[in-house]
Amino acid sequence: MGFEVRLFDYLPSGNGYKVRLLLRQLGVPFRLTQVDIVQGETRTPGFLAMNPNGKIPTAEVEPGRFLAESHAICLYFAEGTPFVPPERFERAQMMQWLCFEQYSLEPFIGTLRFWRHSLHRTPEAVGEAYRTKLDGGHRALGILDAALAQEPFLVGGRYGLADVALYAYTHVAAEGDFELSRFPAVRAWHERVRAEPGHVPIDWTPEERP
Amino acid sequence: MGFEVRLFDYLPSGNGYKVRLLLRQLGVPFRLTQVDIVQGETRTPGFLAMNPNGKIPTAEVEPGRFLAESHAICLYFAEGTPFVPPERFERAQMMQWLCFEQYSLEPFIGTLRFWRHSLHRTPEAVGEAYRTKLDGGHRALGILDAALAQEPFLVGGRYGLADVALYAYTHVAAEGDFELSRFPAVRAWHERVRAEPGHVPIDWTPEERP
Repeated sequence: MGFEVRLFDYLPSGNGYKVRLLLRQLGVPFRLTQVDIVQGETRTPGFLAMNPNGKIPTAEVEPGRFLAESHAICLYFAEGTPFVPPERFERAQMMQWLCFEQYSLEPFIGTLRFWRHSLHRTPEAVGEAYRTKLDGGHRALGILDAALAQEPFLVGGRYGLADVALYAYTHVAAEGDFELSRFPAVRAWHERVRAEPGHVPIDWTPEERP
Repeated sequence: MGFEVRLFDYLPSGNGYKVRLLLRQLGVPFRLTQVDIVQGETRTPGFLAMNPNGKIPTAEVEPGRFLAESHAICLYFAEGTPFVPPERFERAQMMQWLCFEQYSLEPFIGTLRFWRHSLHRTPEAVGEAYRTKLDGGHRALGILDAALAQEPFLVGGRYGLADVALYAYTHVAAEGDFELSRFPAVRAWHERVRAEPGHVPIDWTPEERP
């Protein structure tokens, strides 16, 4: 058989989940190699040869050609599918949401959730940053909530890559102590995202094949 | 006359400079409205109506249609031009660099430079974060340097949007105390970027028109 996409990933990662969910919904088969970021497995010479930035998700998308950054990997597969709108302004709106996620949401919700959920740190152990991360995440959720109070999905009224990308960390925000009950439009959108065909939960893995 | 693109921006911002440099090199005329982020001008009700995230650059790209996030604005204008490669893997590599910039470079170099250069904070006033930001920025510059030791430009051997985006903060990194002398391939690439037709410096503004 031909080449199979290979994904190097850490199952609890929201960034990795974006790629896993999208590939599943696009029907792109892939092989998953789990990498334990807590044990430093992204900083070995072998891993750094695939991604010098030492982060998951990293994917071999063509034989010997590797891509890093969740949104770059997603766009590689989503371009030309219904997950990316064809109209110029809507494409840019999708990009705006992807950038917002990486700059104004993930560094707060993703990071605090990682400290609390994966590293098991108490709020006291997190220290001063606990409040900063909590406030930043709630601020981002507020912006998302206001947008979703107007529209069923983030761009052009239909489910797409922006929804995949922003669902990933927000649906598990409670694991970082974020109060989702304050954001009813976000919660209602979570239900709509979960109802999409082919949806899988964050800990889903493709079937093992010999 | 018809509609003119309007850019709301803060001149010292590297994020804003990406858009200004690209529009200039694409020959897209635009009107610049300077916004003083230090004085809170991005948090007024009027500004938040254009961009609920309260950040520059924000652009009116079509009548009454606003976009935020430097890379989303840049892609809106650059798609279909030689600044974005047409080949699938190279497009994804460009996206990977844009994501790297926003997640692994700008929060270190852009933020420390803003504190030192725009807010005039001393390293002592910055405190513990001074070393974290400095180390993170040098790490990002190291990754960039290794890539640029192999290739004249970031993607496909030719100047494009990834170069515009990564040039913006790295060329003024010294204003945040980063040691560019340690990264000779980055410095040589800065010279190549500056030699591109239509290049303008970070404080360039379009001609005032009545």
